[in-house]
Amino acid sequence: MPTINRQWLLKSRPEGPAVEREHFEKRESAIPTIRDGEFLVRNRWFSCDPSQRAWMDTETYVKPVALGQPMRSFTGGEVVESRHPGFKAGDAVTGTFGWQDYVVCDGRDELGTVTRLPKDIDLPAALSLFGITGLTAYFGMFDIGKPRAGDTVVVSGAAGATGVIAAQIAKARGLRTIGIAGGDAKCRWLRESLGLDDAVDYKAGNMRDALRERCPDGIDVYFDNIGGEILDAGLANLASGARVVMCGAIAGYGNFDDMPPIRQYHQLILKRATMQGFLVFDYLARTDEAVAEMSPWLAAGKIQNPVDIAEGFDAAPDALKRLFAGQNRGKQLVRLD
Amino acid sequence: MPTINRQWLLKSRPEGPAVEREHFEKRESAIPTIRDGEFLVRNRWFSCDPSQRAWMDTETYVKPVALGQPMRSFTGGEVVESRHPGFKAGDAVTGTFGWQDYVVCDGRDELGTVTRLPKDIDLPAALSLFGITGLTAYFGMFDIGKPRAGDTVVVSGAAGATGVIAAQIAKARGLRTIGIAGGDAKCRWLRESLGLDDAVDYKAGNMRDALRERCPDGIDVYFDNIGGEILDAGLANLASGARVVMCGAIAGYGNFDDMPPIRQYHQLILKRATMQGFLVFDYLARTDEAVAEMSPWLAAGKIQNPVDIAEGFDAAPDALKRLFAGQNRGKQLVRLD
Repeated sequence: MPTINRQWLLKSRPEGPAVEREHFEKRESAIPTIRDGEFLVRNRWFSCDPSQRAWMDTETYVKPVALGQPMRSFTGGEVVESRHPGFKAGDAVTGTFGWQDYVVCDGRDELGTVTRLPKDIDLPAALSLFGITGLTAYFGMFDIGKPRAGDTVVVSGAAGATGVIAAQIAKARGLRTIGIAGGDAKCRWLRESLGLDDAVDYKAGNMRDALRERCPDGIDVYFDNIGGEILDAGLANLASGARVVMCGAIAGYGNFDDMPPIRQYHQLILKRATMQGFLVFDYLARTDEAVAEMSPWLAAGKIQNPVDIAEGFDAAPDALKRLFAGQNRGKQLVRLD
Repeated sequence: MPTINRQWLLKSRPEGPAVEREHFEKRESAIPTIRDGEFLVRNRWFSCDPSQRAWMDTETYVKPVALGQPMRSFTGGEVVESRHPGFKAGDAVTGTFGWQDYVVCDGRDELGTVTRLPKDIDLPAALSLFGITGLTAYFGMFDIGKPRAGDTVVVSGAAGATGVIAAQIAKARGLRTIGIAGGDAKCRWLRESLGLDDAVDYKAGNMRDALRERCPDGIDVYFDNIGGEILDAGLANLASGARVVMCGAIAGYGNFDDMPPIRQYHQLILKRATMQGFLVFDYLARTDEAVAEMSPWLAAGKIQNPVDIAEGFDAAPDALKRLFAGQNRGKQLVRLD
């Protein structure tokens, strides 16, 4: 039985947008002990999410991580010891358990994400398609985007964790779906392996024209993970009555006051359109609904659940950094050794 | 009986944002004659609206005015001759009848705005509180903004035609209402004569701090007539679940591709907020509903209907220009001589 608890602590707050290894400090401490009403989780996987960058220094819907504390992270692992009536040793769990091997939990965490997994969902799937990422895609696309038969859907960041699910589930519901991603390789992957109707490389030039060509009748649902001028190109091509789903803004997580600007917001007036933000935490009670629709799609091969795995506890800071360089394809995870 | 029909024709399209007299040419022609199913309107009032600037050169929800044609404008007047079963000589009417003394109408116009007025509504009121302007304020504030008891409402352009109605009707429904306007005189007017809870002068400095001070619990409904950095200051101060009503964007009517940017759109995510545009033309069938609620407020002195009147046919181009310099207080009208 191990006796050491490895932790990545937040050591300093970034000055610029980048996430760097130097902002974290590795520490080894004793494994914490549980009291009545608590259980001990051993993490096996860390989830890498853009929101972690905001948590490093920004007051959002949750306080930033305190310096010297373990970095906040969604994780997955197993209960190794329990004095809590709802959890027993051997249970697979996910939650906001942080960058550490072991954590004591009383059944709740600060984001309300503690979940005991059904037997048939493995941890990588629970941290991607059937976790925060997939639920964000599902409720963002269907509850906020409200696509209707015949609609044209565009997803930015379509090779990223949330985008790749959002685009595939729109397609699985029969909608014409176009992804936006960086580089020809990602675009080919979206078209050829994942079956999107088309994909646009934002590095290739004029996005506004590229979207106009592909969406001559306008975009009915624009699912945004990026912000800035890619979002502007989407706004310039909205159909009347369009819904713009504000899911993420990776262009700005480092400094919300210096977000890349948008100028085409008047299109919301001209097109009677709506731009709506949401937080997945409001939808966790409806998880079953999303799992019930997405599971058969996954089983039938109508959607895939691409995960990009970094190996080992030590890889966590670099794995997180990959998101902001657009290096991941699908969900970035860290598998603990 | 006059025999001459004065018209202001669109002579050239503006290069920059400004509306100038030189873009229009005055012409005198014969009064047109009616056929079966038509009636002849004599205009008595022109309505000045920011959207007219867009109509001068931009494809929006309607084609731009063709060069050499009468400038498009909402107007009010009387039927002087009719061979149409629904209209008779003496009827007061409003519609998109253009900058001219006389116009032939078959009962419809390109924006669907032709209206025969009830006896108790005079033309200036029909072109302001009970016309497009007031209906924009009413349905924007209540249908799009969806204020709830206890909400804090902020209206930008609150001394302008639509803003001054939007702010007053929010206040009349019992909501805490703050206006944004340019200059201390306008702000005093909003507070002291129109009874808003507070008013903020955007020329006085840091709007973001000014709104934070006045709205410590955040803004629930932000009614935007302006765009740009004033809108950004509003977005930075939204309450959770806020609704941003995209009504107008006077900062950009001259060149939508060069709109002043906004950067705080990620707040829509953090605050689970919605930003929604609309066009009043979708609400004209519900005019009675708005008139029924606003008429008693006007009669009881709970709201005022401020109009700013320019005298004479020749004043039309300069009166329109006043909107873009923020010179009007309330609705800008032109009274024909």
